[in-house]
Amino acid sequence: MTTQQESTQEKSLKIKEVADRFYELAKEARFDLIQAELFSSDARSIEPDSSPFPLTEGLDNIIEKAKQWQEMTEANHGGYCDEPIIAGNFFACTMGMDITLKGQERSMMDEIAVYEVKDGKIVLEQFFY
Amino acid sequence: MTTQQESTQEKSLKIKEVADRFYELAKEARFDLIQAELFSSDARSIEPDSSPFPLTEGLDNIIEKAKQWQEMTEANHGGYCDEPIIAGNFFACTMGMDITLKGQERSMMDEIAVYEVKDGKIVLEQFFY
Repeated sequence: MTTQQESTQEKSLKIKEVADRFYELAKEARFDLIQAELFSSDARSIEPDSSPFPLTEGLDNIIEKAKQWQEMTEANHGGYCDEPIIAGNFFACTMGMDITLKGQERSMMDEIAVYEVKDGKIVLEQFFY
Repeated sequence: MTTQQESTQEKSLKIKEVADRFYELAKEARFDLIQAELFSSDARSIEPDSSPFPLTEGLDNIIEKAKQWQEMTEANHGGYCDEPIIAGNFFACTMGMDITLKGQERSMMDEIAVYEVKDGKIVLEQFFY
């Protein structure tokens, strides 16, 4: 094993460590920190085809999507994230937002989120709702 | 409400009931019964793009895929399914197979499976591995 390989492996968080850190930050709704700390620069974000953002590619665009979502939001009344389940290089969790979007009724949005981890970074998030 | 609507609603299992029955059968590896009892005739099954079956549409084709998988299998040494998590019309769980495929080494395959339920039936399964 070369020094570079060792170094890369040391830096690579294991799936359980990534899921634990994700959960810690998600419970505080710090998705900005999740993206900054845990996302790969080439991560992809997939939502249902009916969503305004069915596919977003690259961390910069994912951060931009989050800004657009903030601009669409009238009020954020709270939310939750439950403990992730883990299999292979993936983890998944349930999460929800109690939210009022501009021009809409206040509503509870529940979803399942699936994350793929590669070399200690999240390379894919996919939301089911 | 018409009699037909009432009848349809009575037949529609709630998401929790579908997830509970799924879990009961999955722990026994009775995916044949899961498909027969819980799947909609127009269900879709999605696997990673790298899989031999990235997209299968319709219950008949999903059952045929299961047969092909059986034919690829040398020996099935066991498996597991953990309790589903639920959000909205979706549930997800971790599952795994200790399997020897023909011409390959025995290996442990772990995955996250996500299921969408509509009118009491599973309309989508998506596997992440």
